[in-house]
Amino acid sequence: MKKLINSPDTVITDALRGMSAAHPGLTVDVENRVISRAQRASDKVGLVSGGGSGHEPLHGGYVGHGMLDAAVPGEIYTSPVPDQIIAATKAANADRGVLHIVKNYTGDVLNFQMAAELAEDEGIDVVSVIMNDDVAVEDSTHTAGRRGTGATIVAEKVAGAAAEEGADLETVARIATEVNERSRSFGIALHAGTVPSAGRPGFELADDEVELGVGIHGEPGRERGTFGPARDLVSYALDAIHADLSISDEVLLILNGQGATPLIELYGAFAEASAWLGGHGAAMVRSLVGNYITSLDQAGFSITVTSLTDELRRLWDAPVSTPALRWGV
Amino acid sequence: MKKLINSPDTVITDALRGMSAAHPGLTVDVENRVISRAQRASDKVGLVSGGGSGHEPLHGGYVGHGMLDAAVPGEIYTSPVPDQIIAATKAANADRGVLHIVKNYTGDVLNFQMAAELAEDEGIDVVSVIMNDDVAVEDSTHTAGRRGTGATIVAEKVAGAAAEEGADLETVARIATEVNERSRSFGIALHAGTVPSAGRPGFELADDEVELGVGIHGEPGRERGTFGPARDLVSYALDAIHADLSISDEVLLILNGQGATPLIELYGAFAEASAWLGGHGAAMVRSLVGNYITSLDQAGFSITVTSLTDELRRLWDAPVSTPALRWGV
Repeated sequence: MKKLINSPDTVITDALRGMSAAHPGLTVDVENRVISRAQRASDKVGLVSGGGSGHEPLHGGYVGHGMLDAAVPGEIYTSPVPDQIIAATKAANADRGVLHIVKNYTGDVLNFQMAAELAEDEGIDVVSVIMNDDVAVEDSTHTAGRRGTGATIVAEKVAGAAAEEGADLETVARIATEVNERSRSFGIALHAGTVPSAGRPGFELADDEVELGVGIHGEPGRERGTFGPARDLVSYALDAIHADLSISDEVLLILNGQGATPLIELYGAFAEASAWLGGHGAAMVRSLVGNYITSLDQAGFSITVTSLTDELRRLWDAPVSTPALRWGV
Repeated sequence: MKKLINSPDTVITDALRGMSAAHPGLTVDVENRVISRAQRASDKVGLVSGGGSGHEPLHGGYVGHGMLDAAVPGEIYTSPVPDQIIAATKAANADRGVLHIVKNYTGDVLNFQMAAELAEDEGIDVVSVIMNDDVAVEDSTHTAGRRGTGATIVAEKVAGAAAEEGADLETVARIATEVNERSRSFGIALHAGTVPSAGRPGFELADDEVELGVGIHGEPGRERGTFGPARDLVSYALDAIHADLSISDEVLLILNGQGATPLIELYGAFAEASAWLGGHGAAMVRSLVGNYITSLDQAGFSITVTSLTDELRRLWDAPVSTPALRWGV
C-alpha cells in the first residue's frame, strides 16, 4: 500500500492539522477533533454534523457561513464519540437550539443520541434529523434501515441557509427533514478504496465487475453487476432512484465522485445523468459535479437527486462560504 | 481497465457535454471544443488558455469572471489544434487584445504560436506568455526547457483579475510573466494514471517506489525514489523548489492532487508543507488544497509555491467565479 500519509495512526490528526493551516475561517481542535467556525455565529440555530472520516470534504469541509457551525470526524469509517459531539454542540450553541444532522448508521445514531441527551442535560435544546436517502438496500451491514449518503450535503446546505436567516429550531429541522424526504441516492463502485490501517482494498472486484449500490464505507450494495459504459451505469443508478421517488419537475442533481475517479470522467457521467433526467421530463435546475462525499480512494460515483420546492431552491442558492462549497459571498 | 466512460473515443466530447449541462455560465462548443463565457466580456483584455485534456479542472474549469475568457482542450495529453485556439481567441477578443497563457510543451507552444500569427492576420493583437515553473527537469520528453504546470492556475487567476480591472494587454502579460518568474512546482507520483485509449497505466512503479518530479502527462521526472512518509515526500518537493527559488516572505501554496489521491491525504500533506514553510521563515498567506491540475487517475501530488507581491496578493484575492475557483462574488 502506497498512500500519501505519515502513518495509518496519524492520518486524521495530520489531516486536521492541514485543515487548520489551510482555512483561517475554521477553528480546528486537533486533539479533540472538532472543526468549528472561527467566528462563532450569534443568535441563530446551530448546526452540527459528523461521522466517520474518509468521506472528505464531508463534513468538515462544509463548516462555515451558510452551512454547519461545527463538525466532528471519527476514526476512518467509524462514528465520532459522544464527547466530540457534545463539544461541537457547545461550540455551535448560540441559545437558539442546535440541530444534529446524522447519517443513518448504527454507531452514528447511537452516539449522536447519547450526546444529544447529555447536551439537553446541560440546557441545550437539540433536535436530530436522521438522513436515510440511499435506496440501494433496505438494511445493511452498518444500518437498520436505509443508509444516509449524499442528501446530507443538501440538508446541511439548505438547513444551514435557513438557520442563517434566523429560522427557529423547529423550522430548520423541518427543512432538513424535507430534504431527506425529497432526496434519493445510489452509488456504484469500480474499484474499492483502501483503509490505511487495513492496507489493502476493502473488497475485490473482477475486471468486468462493479458493485451496484455500494455504501460509502465500501459495504455491499444490491449485487455485483457487469461493468459497462458510463451511460448504462448512470441509467442503472437513476432507474433505482426513480423506482423509489418519482422524478419530475425541478431537481437538484449531484454527480459525486467517490475519491479516485477523475473529473473528466465525472463530467462525462454528468452528461448522461442530465440526458436521463431530460428524457424523464425533469428539469435539472441546480447541480454539483465533483468529489463531495467520498470513500477514500475508491473509484466510482454516486448520484443524489433532490426534488426541489421553491423554498429549497431559494435556500440552496443562498450565500455559502465553506472550504468545499462557496458562492454568493 | 474499468473507467467511468462510454468509450475511449468519446471521453472528451462526453465531458464537454457534461460541462455544458453543469455550467450555465459557460458556452461549450462541443463539436469545435471551445469553452467560453456565456456572457462575453466587453472592453477588457481577453485571456485564452488550453492544452491536452486529462488535467481537469484545468483549463475549462477556470473560464469565467475574473479568470479566462475561453479555453481549448486537446485530445488526452495532446495539444489543441490551431483552429480551436483561433476560435477561442476570437471568442475572447473584445478589441483590447488577447493574452495566450501557454504551458511549455513543444506541441502547445507550436500550435498557440501558429494560432497567434493567424489571429494577428485577422487584426487581433495577441501576446503569449509561456509558463515553465516545473523545476523537476531542465528538458523533458515533451519539452525544450522546463515544463509548465501548477503556476498556470496562478497566472490565469491574477492576470484574469488584472484584465477584469481594465489593465491593458502589456500589463496583463507582464503580470502573468511575473507569476511565472516567482513560481516553482514539483510533483511526485505514487501510482501512474491510465490514458483511456492506452488502457493500462502509463508507467509501472514498484510497491516501494515513487516517481520524483513526475510530469503532468506521467512523463519521467528526475529519478525513481523510495516511497516514504508524506513528510519526506513533501520535504523532497519543497527542497527541490527551494533550491531553485529561495522561499521566504509571503507565499501562496498550492497542494495539488493528481486525480486519485483522496482529500484526507492531501490535507495531511498540506500540514507538512505548511510546517516546512514555517521552518524556512516563509509566511503562507494564501493557499489551495485539492485537485486543481490533475493527470487523469494518477495518485500523487504536486506543490506550487508563488512568492507573492502586494499586487499579486491583491489580484489573487479579487472576485472570481468559475466552476473550479469561486470567491468574492
